[in-house]
Amino acid sequence: MLDNEILIGNKPLMNYVTAILTQLKEQKTIIIMARGAAIKKAIDAVEITTKQFYKHPTTTTITTNSTTLINENNVKQTVSSIKIILNKQHRSN
Amino acid sequence: MLDNEILIGNKPLMNYVTAILTQLKEQKTIIIMARGAAIKKAIDAVEITTKQFYKHPTTTTITTNSTTLINENNVKQTVSSIKIILNKQHRSN
Repeated sequence: MLDNEILIGNKPLMNYVTAILTQLKEQKTIIIMARGAAIKKAIDAVEITTKQFYKHPTTTTITTNSTTLINENNVKQTVSSIKIILNKQHRSN
Repeated sequence: MLDNEILIGNKPLMNYVTAILTQLKEQKTIIIMARGAAIKKAIDAVEITTKQFYKHPTTTTITTNSTTLINENNVKQTVSSIKIILNKQHRSN
């Protein structure tokens, strides 16, 4: 996992908002990734960060994908994933 | 609501896959919209349609937004929404 990647998991939403804000101070580009049920949380985190906290212009590029995995009951399951690339549109230096 | 718009709601996932497939026969561009908890279902529906059923190339463009609304307890709530624009990359005629 690279420095500028944030994987959305089970922590509270605001933890991820804080993580994105911290990264935005240091990086020009941040990659936010989520799978399955965390997809909504990833979008919420990006929306809250860019609309309510981070006051500079950003662009987001969103792509989706899906992975097939075998679950605990030996059943094939397809899980969607999302990748949100968040780009700062200003120079901080 | 336009002919080529599909709003993802509470119906089973496969209903939306079928709806997207039906629209893909008739339209070049389809717009899939979802809000809140339905966001994951929208992405699942597009992934299943384009990877497992629809055998022609497509491109997707995804944008997000958020709306603030007052819920039943008079509390302000911000809800994220997603808009997926699905474009056919071939001529069907």
